[in-house]
Order: sequence, then C-alpha cells, then structure tokens
Amino acid sequence: MKLQFLGTSAGVPTKQRNVTGLALSESEGKGWYLIDCGEATQHQLLHTHLTLNTLKAIFITHVHGDHSYGLPGILASAAMNGRKNPLTIVAPAAIQQWLAATVLHTQLYLPYELEFIDADTLPDVKFEQLTVSTTALSHRVPCYGYSFQEIAASTNLNIVKLQQDGIPRGPLWGQIKQGLDVEVNGVKVSAQHYLQQGHPPQKIVVAGDNDSPQLLAETCRDGSVLVHEATYTKAIADKVGSGPMHSYAAQIAAFAESINIPHLVLTHFSSRYQDNGPTTVMEIYDEAKTQYHGQLYLARDFAEFQLQRNGDFAEVIAE
Amino acid sequence: MKLQFLGTSAGVPTKQRNVTGLALSESEGKGWYLIDCGEATQHQLLHTHLTLNTLKAIFITHVHGDHSYGLPGILASAAMNGRKNPLTIVAPAAIQQWLAATVLHTQLYLPYELEFIDADTLPDVKFEQLTVSTTALSHRVPCYGYSFQEIAASTNLNIVKLQQDGIPRGPLWGQIKQGLDVEVNGVKVSAQHYLQQGHPPQKIVVAGDNDSPQLLAETCRDGSVLVHEATYTKAIADKVGSGPMHSYAAQIAAFAESINIPHLVLTHFSSRYQDNGPTTVMEIYDEAKTQYHGQLYLARDFAEFQLQRNGDFAEVIAE
Repeated sequence: MKLQFLGTSAGVPTKQRNVTGLALSESEGKGWYLIDCGEATQHQLLHTHLTLNTLKAIFITHVHGDHSYGLPGILASAAMNGRKNPLTIVAPAAIQQWLAATVLHTQLYLPYELEFIDADTLPDVKFEQLTVSTTALSHRVPCYGYSFQEIAASTNLNIVKLQQDGIPRGPLWGQIKQGLDVEVNGVKVSAQHYLQQGHPPQKIVVAGDNDSPQLLAETCRDGSVLVHEATYTKAIADKVGSGPMHSYAAQIAAFAESINIPHLVLTHFSSRYQDNGPTTVMEIYDEAKTQYHGQLYLARDFAEFQLQRNGDFAEVIAE
Repeated sequence: MKLQFLGTSAGVPTKQRNVTGLALSESEGKGWYLIDCGEATQHQLLHTHLTLNTLKAIFITHVHGDHSYGLPGILASAAMNGRKNPLTIVAPAAIQQWLAATVLHTQLYLPYELEFIDADTLPDVKFEQLTVSTTALSHRVPCYGYSFQEIAASTNLNIVKLQQDGIPRGPLWGQIKQGLDVEVNGVKVSAQHYLQQGHPPQKIVVAGDNDSPQLLAETCRDGSVLVHEATYTKAIADKVGSGPMHSYAAQIAAFAESINIPHLVLTHFSSRYQDNGPTTVMEIYDEAKTQYHGQLYLARDFAEFQLQRNGDFAEVIAE
C-alpha cells in the first residue's frame, strides 16, 4: 500500500500545508482511497498522479470543515471529469445529510451513484484488496479511525519442491495452489507440503482527530503504520487547554511506543508551526522522539510513503 | 477601486487557474468585497495582501459550486482568525439555506454575525464608499450581476479662490465644503462659487454566468469597466450547444462595443483553454478583439487592475 499526504495542517490552510486529506493506494492496480477531504483537496490532486476516476471510496473521520469542506467540489469535479462508477462514502451520517442539502441548494448534479455507509455504526467495509474497519475516537464531535488491512496473505507454490517430487505442472498445481489435496499416481499428496505462506497481510491505521490514543490499541494490533494527529507540543497543549480535544506529540508517541507499532506518521499540525517560522514542526518531532523508538515521520503535503508486503515502510523520494 | 482576480477558470480548477473569485477593493482604506467564492478562494487569498478581517461583504452571483463552494471554508477561517465584525452576504436565498445546513451538519461555529441580503430581490446595497446594485442575468439557475458605484464625486474646495476673496480659513471653509452658503462680514456668500466638482463617480460592473449580455445594457450605462465571462470561443460554443447558457468571446465583445464601455475584462475560461496547451486563452482574446475596440483584457489568477477616480484603468504590474 502507498500513502500520499494531500493536506497536513490543522484547522486552516497555510501557504505550505493544506487542511487534511490523505490518499491510500492499493498495492495492485490504480485504485485508491481518500481519507478526509478538506477544502482544496481536489486542487492538491492536480499535482499528483491520482485521478478521480480510479478513486474507490472516501472516508471522512468527522464533520469538521477542515476534514470535509472539499467534498462538494471533489464530487462535482468527478462528475465533470465523466465519472460514471458508483462512489462509496464512509462518513458520519451528518455528512450524508450535508451533501443532500448541498445537492439540493446548489443544484449539484452527479451522474454517478453515491453509496453511503454510516461510520456511526462502526462498519467493516470490504473492497477487493482491502478490508477497512472503523474505530470510535474521542473528539468534540463523533470521530473515527479507519484501519486498512490487506485481505489475504499471498500464498505461493513452492515450485522447487513440486519439481523435486515430480508433481507434473498443469491442473494439479492449480488445485494445490487452492489448498486442495490431490492424487499423483494413486498417491495422496497434501497441498500444505507445497504451499509457502506469503507475508502476513499488512495494516495501516489512519486516525481522525482524537485526544485518547489508547482507543486505538486494539485496532493497531498487528498494524504496521499508525497515522495520527499531533496538533501541538505538550507546552502548547497545556496552554490551549483540553477544549479542542487534540493529541500532543509526546502523548501519541508514548502510546505508539506502548503498543510497539513499528511506524508512526504524525500529521495535522497547528498553523502556529511554520516550516520557516520561529516555531517549526521540528519541535513536534523532537518531543515525539523522546517517547517513541520506532520509525517516526512528520507528514508534509505531497510526501509519499510505501508499505511493502514484507512490512518495510519508507518515504518514496521523488527522483 | 481595485480588482484582483482570485480565480478565472470555469467549472473546475486547473493547475494555473482556480474557480471563480474576484476581490474589489475600495479606493480609500483597506476595505474590500469578494464577488463569488469558488472552492479554495481562501487559499488564493494567502498569496495576496487581502485579509479576512477587512472583508466587508461577499456577493455570490449564483449557486453553482464553482462560484460558491469556498464559502463554508472562508467563513470558518475568518472565525479562526478572530473576526468579530458582522459580514454581509448578498446571494440567492438558496445560498443562505445551504449555509444554514452547513452550520447545522458540520457544527460550524461563527463568532460573528452574517447579514444576508437576498439577491433574488435585486437589492441596492449601500456601503460607506460604494453602492452596489443587482441585475438579473440569464443562466441555468437564477444568476446576478453586481455593479459597484462610488457613492459621490469627490467635491473639493477651490482654495485659491477662497484666499483671493479673503474668506478666512476655519469653520467657514468646512461649511462651504458641505455646500452650505455662509455670511462673511455681513455679506452672503454662495458655497457653489468655491466648490469644484471632482471626477464623476466610477462604476465597475461584475457579471455572473450569463448567456444574454444585453441584460446588462442599462446597468453598464456610465460604467467604466465590465467584467464578464467568456467561457468559450464561438466555435466551441456552437459545438457545446446552448445548454450550458454561457457567453462566447465575440458575443460579449460585440455587446461591449455596442454600449461603448471603455474597458472589458474577460474571465471564466473553460478548462480546455490551457495557458501552455494547444488551445490557449489567446483564441478568446483574438476573437473578442475582432468585435471590440475598447481596452480589452483577459483575467489571470492574481492579476490586479486599478480604476482611478478619473476613469483611467490599467493592470497593476508587480515590481
């Protein structure tokens, strides 16, 4: 799977960072998923290789505008780009109501179907290559995390062994690949002897705004990557108070350390952290680093990360 | 008055042009008005000198998303920037309903008042320096043009004459400036003798989407500048058919010629015209030029134009 950040700023856009949006691409083919859709997410897409015709579903973590106000425009542009395929939207029910009001009042015509799935029911949603499960988080409004798990480990034939044992290539190999025991020259042969397990299915957990990381403990089990907000450092979080219900760097980092998740990507930075200002996101990095000893990353707009089937995870550096 | 284009593309954003938005600044002070607010208008503002605290009013020409989907985000960001002053919104009633639904479903909190004025009633709206009048246009949905007229010609004291005639500087001059006759040494003195008329008030007409330019004939009388869409050239308009209800270059140019308006700025170009593609906006310019002999301009994102009090109009070239 691949991640590309489309917006990494909390609340308001800055010159360097848009409000929240994240693209998750499938390992095979061109299908991708959008998690959150702040205003101008469609504008960000113009600078990537992602197209609105290969978008399979949109997941919205919560109703706040910096996570959702790009929805009407992206749906309208998909229509103008000629999209005909249904589009799945997994979101709080209020988003469905808001889009219905938008269609009505702004005379938005969509020549494709929207298939809504109510995130408030904590659904598991199955796609060809992925199952997405939903976790309730803690924020000022109902808010969710989505975990993207590859559907099956790939199972491979041990071809060397098949050849050594003289199992003839052809239909028998196909049956063994499906896990079926076969007969060769009247002798029963166990499929399991000739199957080698691929890597275990990988999982990426993408959280919405959340002041209680421990709510993700269960869903992060066997996860390779956690993408979570770190809106502030602790000093600023203390100054701002608990009203906004966000996480700070040390808090989410300590949680990630406690569950031993190997890769943590922080995002959703307060606009007070400017890349070339007196207060930079490196303060968030430095604070998180004191608590977490796995691989730590700060998201930037357009940064791409690849999670290999073997669990390797790294930033894709554009050539 | 000053114009700065924030978006000049029709329907969808491109890498070079955002969807519609136009800032009109008052001649004196920092007050400004926003005409249309396509998605990411607030993002465009980050690259200008305009601030959300000095925004006096937003005018929406019609409900289509490429003219309105930036509204929720710009209102939310104004709130987060600490705006407390009421904000006037002149728009079709459906926009008021859509924003009410947006406030409800996305839990948008605005710590300032919105003062809605229903464009469907064709209001005249008075501000300190300007009166804005509304004209109904012809499009697929109710659509309006807004004309911004300076409130009064500036009237100046003829100081040379006052001094020649020995009228003592002080309160008397103030009364004369207000057009009041005064007595000097028992002699009645007419204020009109000492007032010299400034330039006539300037007018800029900004139209929404419209397939019938002649609807603007009356409001363009005494206008200095007309800003109007030219979505296509005639060849493309013929191919597309009359369904979209837009103007083409020769059509709006011929209208501008017929009413003798001295300055015409074309905008809202179909995304098929790319600045560095095989089909460029220069086709629109060339077609318009055959019909119009005034000063013709094509809008670009961030282009600024100044209309002087004497009617001079020119692009402001950044140093």
